[in-house]
Order: sequence, then C-alpha cells, then structure tokens
Amino acid sequence: MERIKIDALLKSEPVGEKKLVKGWVRTKRGSKSVNFIALNDGSCIHNLQIVADTENFSEEVLRKVTTGAAISVVGEISESKGSGQSVEMIAEEIEILGVADSEKYPLQPKKHSLEFLREIAHLRFRTSTFGAVFRIRHALSFAIHDYFNKNGFYYLNTPIITGSDAEGAGEMFRVTNFDLDNIPKNEEGKIDFKEDFFGRETNLTVSGQLEAELGAMALSQVYTFGPTFRAENSNTSRHLAEFWMVEPEVAFADLKDDMDLAEDFLKYIVQYALDNCADDLAFLENRIEQEDKQKPKDQRQPMSLTEKLKFIVENEFERVTYTDAIDILRNSKPNKKKKFNYLIEEWGADLQSEHERFLVEKHFKKPVILYDYPADIKAFYMRQNDDDKTVAAMDILFPGIGEIVGGSQREERLSVLTEKMKDFNIPEEEMWWYLDTRKYGTAPHSGFGLGFERLVLFVTGMSNIRDVIAFPRTPGSAEF
Amino acid sequence: MERIKIDALLKSEPVGEKKLVKGWVRTKRGSKSVNFIALNDGSCIHNLQIVADTENFSEEVLRKVTTGAAISVVGEISESKGSGQSVEMIAEEIEILGVADSEKYPLQPKKHSLEFLREIAHLRFRTSTFGAVFRIRHALSFAIHDYFNKNGFYYLNTPIITGSDAEGAGEMFRVTNFDLDNIPKNEEGKIDFKEDFFGRETNLTVSGQLEAELGAMALSQVYTFGPTFRAENSNTSRHLAEFWMVEPEVAFADLKDDMDLAEDFLKYIVQYALDNCADDLAFLENRIEQEDKQKPKDQRQPMSLTEKLKFIVENEFERVTYTDAIDILRNSKPNKKKKFNYLIEEWGADLQSEHERFLVEKHFKKPVILYDYPADIKAFYMRQNDDDKTVAAMDILFPGIGEIVGGSQREERLSVLTEKMKDFNIPEEEMWWYLDTRKYGTAPHSGFGLGFERLVLFVTGMSNIRDVIAFPRTPGSAEF
Repeated sequence: MERIKIDALLKSEPVGEKKLVKGWVRTKRGSKSVNFIALNDGSCIHNLQIVADTENFSEEVLRKVTTGAAISVVGEISESKGSGQSVEMIAEEIEILGVADSEKYPLQPKKHSLEFLREIAHLRFRTSTFGAVFRIRHALSFAIHDYFNKNGFYYLNTPIITGSDAEGAGEMFRVTNFDLDNIPKNEEGKIDFKEDFFGRETNLTVSGQLEAELGAMALSQVYTFGPTFRAENSNTSRHLAEFWMVEPEVAFADLKDDMDLAEDFLKYIVQYALDNCADDLAFLENRIEQEDKQKPKDQRQPMSLTEKLKFIVENEFERVTYTDAIDILRNSKPNKKKKFNYLIEEWGADLQSEHERFLVEKHFKKPVILYDYPADIKAFYMRQNDDDKTVAAMDILFPGIGEIVGGSQREERLSVLTEKMKDFNIPEEEMWWYLDTRKYGTAPHSGFGLGFERLVLFVTGMSNIRDVIAFPRTPGSAEF
Repeated sequence: MERIKIDALLKSEPVGEKKLVKGWVRTKRGSKSVNFIALNDGSCIHNLQIVADTENFSEEVLRKVTTGAAISVVGEISESKGSGQSVEMIAEEIEILGVADSEKYPLQPKKHSLEFLREIAHLRFRTSTFGAVFRIRHALSFAIHDYFNKNGFYYLNTPIITGSDAEGAGEMFRVTNFDLDNIPKNEEGKIDFKEDFFGRETNLTVSGQLEAELGAMALSQVYTFGPTFRAENSNTSRHLAEFWMVEPEVAFADLKDDMDLAEDFLKYIVQYALDNCADDLAFLENRIEQEDKQKPKDQRQPMSLTEKLKFIVENEFERVTYTDAIDILRNSKPNKKKKFNYLIEEWGADLQSEHERFLVEKHFKKPVILYDYPADIKAFYMRQNDDDKTVAAMDILFPGIGEIVGGSQREERLSVLTEKMKDFNIPEEEMWWYLDTRKYGTAPHSGFGLGFERLVLFVTGMSNIRDVIAFPRTPGSAEF
C-alpha cells in the first residue's frame, strides 16, 4: 500500500477506506482499553488522530509509541466522534520505525521557549509553530519565483564569492584558502593574495544588485534570490550574519515604475500566503493571541495577524517624499512630547524604526513608500535628482516592522556616477565592469531589495528573525 | 505610451498599431534612404526589425544608432516584407538613451570566441547565445521550484556558512573575520578560533544534504536549491568553485522511491524546457550544428540537441546494479580492445565518464541508473546493504555528460552509522545533531543531489560549465 500524507488524507476524507500513514507521534493519551495517538508528518499543521484498541496490539509496541517516535500505521478512516477533527484512523497495524526515549527526547509535549528551541534547531521543525513557519517560508519563496516568472523576469544567480567590496566596506566576511598558520607574504612583507585560491582578496557578497544590473542591461528584467552576508557584530532580534535577499532589477524603469513594481509584488506575495497558508496562519494568529494575553495591554499587537496581512493587500500604499515625511514627523505629537527616542529636528535625519512605524500605524494608517531621500544617507549608485540634494531612492514601510523594501533608480549617467564614486572613495578600476554598462548602451533602470527573512517575519508574526531561518548564523553561533 | 517587450510584440503581432519599444541595437544596415535596425531587449532570442526612413530622422540621431546603443523607438507595426520575421516596426520617433562608441564597444557584430566572451561576462548577456543560455537557465530553475511545490516538498534554505566539515575535508573555503595580519593566538600559541566571528572554525558548505535530512525528518519532503562550494584546484570545463545544487530529501522513502522521484523529476524539468524554451533551444541547436560542421566527423555530436532532450523524456531509465555494470564494461569491446583510458579490471573500480557514457550511449541507448555501489567508494551516510559490501546509492547517467544525479538511501540505523563514522574518522561530537535524528524517531529516508550547472550544460548543449553560470568562480578568477 502506498503511504498517503496527512494533508491529503484530511482534505479528501476517505471515510471507510483503508490507508497507510507514516509520521512522528506528537502525543499519546487514553485509557487501558484505547489509545489516542496524534500523528504528524509535517505535510500540514494538523495531526491525524489514530485510535488504537489496546487489545489489538502488544504492550511492547504500544509502549514504544511515545512522543517523537516514528511510526507507520495502517487503518480504516472513520468519521471522528471527538471535536477538533473530522476524521480519524482506526489502527489495524502499527509498526515502530524509530523510538524516541522519553527520558531523553528534548521535545516532550509541554511548552518550550523559542530560545530553547533555537538550541535544538535540528528538531524544532517537529513543533507546530516551526512546522507552520517553514511551510509559510516555502510558500513565500515559491510565490516570489512565481510572480517574477509570470511577469517576464529572469532569475539570475549572482556570485556569492566576490572580489568587489564597493558596498560592504568593513562588514564583509573574508573567503580564503590560505593556511592561517602560514600565510604567504610577498617581497614587501605584505600578504600575497596572488597566492590565494582566486589570486586576489575575496569576500562573501553583501548584495547581488551590482551584478543584477549587468543582467538587466541585456535581458531587461532580472531578479536574484540568494544568500547575502553581513559581518556585523549585532546580537539583536533583527540581524543575521547570513540571510536571503530578493533583488529585482529592471531596465527602462524609473523610480515610479520601481514603486509600482514593489507594491504589486508585495501585494501578490501576501495574498498568496493568505490564499495558500490559511491553516498555518490561523495557528500562528492564535499563538500570538495567546501570548498577548500574558502581556500588558500596551505591548499587545495592535492588529491580528490576518488584519495585518489584509492591511497590505487592501490598502493603496501611500507615497510620500522624505521631505514631507520629515515635516509630518517634526510636527507630530510624539516628537513634540519627546516620546520618540530619536527626536526629529531637521531635514537630513536618518529615520528610525519608531518614525517609520508612526507614519504607517498612526499617521497614514496604510503601508507607506517614502521616496526622494537625502543623497548623504544613501548609496553611491542611487540616481541624483535635479535638486542636487536628494536621490531617487524609496523605502517601503510596513506596520510592526518598519522598512521591508529599499530600492532606487540607479545612476545611469557615467559622469555623475564616477563623480559620486570619487566622493565615496570607490576606486574606478575595481568597478570597470559596472561602469561599462554606463559607457555602452546605458539606459534608465531601477530595482529594489527585499530582505527575505524580514518578509517571513512579517507574514508569520514571529518576533525574532532567528526563528524564521532554519539554522541562523549570528555572532558566536554557527551550529548545525 | 507604455513600452511593449519584443517577445510580447512578436507573439501578438499588432499590425497597424502604434507601439513603443526599448532595447539595444544588435546591427544597423541599409542604404542612404532607409536604415534597418535589429533591436533586441533580451525578452526573447528574436530581434525586432525597425525600418527608419532616413528622411525622417536627423543624421546625428542615426549616426548614434550603432551596435550596443540603447534606444527607444515609437512606430507602427506592419507586416514584414523581408524574410526572417513576420512583422516589423516603421519608426516614427527614435530616442538615443545611451550610445556605444563603435571604436571601443567590445561586442561588435562579428563572431567572438566563448573564451573572449567569458572575459566580458558583464556584457555577454547581450549576445544571442548567452541570452538563450540564461533564459533557459531561468526556465530550468523555475521548473525545479514548480515541480517540488506541486509535489508537496518544502524549500529549505540550509546554511551556507557551516561549522561542520564532515563531507568536505580539505576542499572547503574558510570563512573568517580575522585580520590576517594579526591572527589571535591562544596560550598554547595556536590560532584562537574562539576569537573569530562565529567563535569557531567555519567554512563554505559543500552540500546542504545533512541539514536537509533534519528538515525531512519532520516535514516529510524538503529540497534545497542554493550555492555550494569546492576549493578544488581543477581548471577544467566541468568544475566550478561555486555552483548551485538541488537536493531533495524524503522521509519514509527507500532507494527505489528515490530513483522513481529522480526519474520523474528529470523528465519533468527537461519536458518543461522543451515546452517553454523552443526558440532558444532551436537557436542553440543550430549553433551546435554550425560548430559541428567545422569539426571532424568523429568529434561531432551524435544526437541533435532536441534528440538528446527527447532521449530523456521518451525513454524509461534503465536501472542496473553497479555489479552488473562492471560485468558489462569488463566484457565490452572498448575494454577488450583497450580503448578506454581506464580499463575496467575488477569489481570496486570507480567508474569514469567514458564508462558512464558507454553504458548510456552505446550499450543501453537509454538514460541509466546505476545502483548498489561498493561502500568503499561512497560517502559515510549511505545505507549499508545486507551484503555488507555495497550501499544503497544510485547515480543517474545521461548521454554526453555522464553522471547528472547522485543519490542514496541514508543510513538510518544509529549503530551502523556511528560505526561507519568511526571508519571515516568523523568525530561524533561534531555531528551530535545529525545523530539525534537517528536517536529520536529515526526512519528510512532518501535523497539525491543534482549539480544545477550540469543540468543547464546538458539542456543548452554548451560545452564549458563556465558558460552556463553568470559569473564563474574558478582557480585564479573571481572577476565581477
């Protein structure tokens, strides 16, 4: 008999049919005469209830049916008498595939802290919470590929190991093949990188954007979706040393096109999650509500998870210049009453999460796109506006989380770009290939970056970014 | 007016309508009275022919319409009088977006060698060959995500930076945040890795499999699709230091299930390319035919590109044990006549590409799955067969390319696995998390690995792996 997955079984409800299921025991309860086994195989949030008449099974088998054990069960599907599920399986054969010693198995059926589960990240997929998180993460990944494929973008795998460090000065991980006990030196006594694997200094990429631009300037529309790295010593709930980025890049597109694309894209992705992850989202929404009950009122989530997701798909994103936003913030109550940790005093200030959230959650009550930022606080490749003070950059702000997307029109004018690179101390000879796209057939183009884990955090409602990536890399931690 | 992409224009053939197109000039030819501009925007292999009556445009504008220039054109679509295209555009307005100095632009319209184009990888996307290759690469990527999503697999992003080196001894790149001029030492004078970013030695992953197993042992079916690394000093047309791997992993699956999955998967992907990349494949097929004409007969491709792809989707893969394959090879003509570079003398020999290709192309004339390999030539995690000599491993062999997929049933029995790790000198304490899945709820499970660039190489018919990844990383080379 072929195994049926629990997701398919619960959707098709084949009452009266004999089926084979395999999975891991979540709990076993019951009496002397009957055992109720909750079986999960990761295909969905729900367990299948298996009813085992103790008369029909040896004591030895039933003793091994403990939390965490892998079992295989054949039985007939019948309508369930209990609440919480529509069908259950009446066990006829139970095979123990792998036991889980209940003295030692770390995932006993009780409440575990997320911190503890992080230490056993190899097992946390087996909990309802992390099952839901990683199924939603999958759905979001797929939605991203699906959106771009449908819209004529080509997936471009930009390099992970890079000789360029235009963007990441000081925050990049080095990649080397040197024996660290015996690093070759040249005649001047300096490290001889010509002897290293790539014949030069190499780092882990901080962004695929510059290379994506090369692709866009030939294929019109490309996107990257791959790992990026930051060697930043930040031990917070928002930072990872290794994270996944999505970076579309579009030729013949200006900043408005870029904002249109990003808004359409984000709405598609969030709607996809609403349409395809209803059960997992409902579980996580309930989880957050339960957690919130333990908190003082002012620390609770202002919106439920579903409300937050609908807030994205049902609102037109408000588009506001940085300059207007500064005015709004300067005159806002929390600024006047000095409630902000960072008071907004003048034009040019970099906005903090508290300001971004104020604009979204209190002032506009919509997702917000801020654009035309001061050139001084943005990257060298962003297109200079005619006012000579601002650049054609935009950030998209979401409730709860602040910035979720950052993008810009790129500086396509060779002379303006090389001037800018001088100001930023970026040597032209290192970026000859980037400059070539401005020398030969340059054209307006734009793109944006989405930190994928930020998106997963937003959609799942989890609060620590380490809980939405399988094996988080952070300062002092590279386990598994 | 909104820009229409050339792909959409050629498909819809909106004769009589006025349209706006943007792209890069491939060629310009013509007479004093009329110019024919071939415009490409990367959306497809085809150019749009633009007809410009020289009377209607200033000499200055037309002079700037050179190969490589980016231009924007408005004009009416009309049926084409020339051969090679069904419609063309009669230009009404031409705007030069970016010039390309014909003295300097490296991509003049003549035949360039693939070697030369590799040196200008930032521009080679603009050639027909590489446009086709990277559009097909995209389609293959999408097909992979699509296949797994449809079949209930969850995409798992396994870590890139890893503290584990169970698989990659000696061939891994080190990741470090140390100042190489000043590496901290401990009291014993040894490098103090506790001072490094992650507080331990870290490397770039060679495979996501071990972590994918952790996911499968909770979610039932997962797959990875991400970059992997080998610090192998191999300067060949088949090796990259950075390449992308696809690694599905399935709980409750044995070797037969694994072979079924891999065969179904490969057929789906190749069929997807046939269905979705017809124009690009036709271009590449023609390109290979032209190249073959320059070669002596015995060096030409035995099958056309389309025949090679149909060979995969139309044949049932032949499943043969390693032991039977050795018998076939030992008794084969090329072995007896000493035509193989490596003669097959006894059981236990590692097969070379020449042997794999003989089995596929000459003997079976079908894709071949070899299975039950000698334990000694395979990895520690592969499941020991009852004969104690072989393991439940399988390799899938394709024409022209040899091995394209390698997979196995994993050793799920704790005692057998720990014994094996001792033999392979893999310390248990480094792999505590891997062993935990065998301690708690272990179950049969299987998976395989597909080197993605190998697949792209096969489907595009290109011959050097550096030509199917955007920016290849090889010994001595990490440009762009």
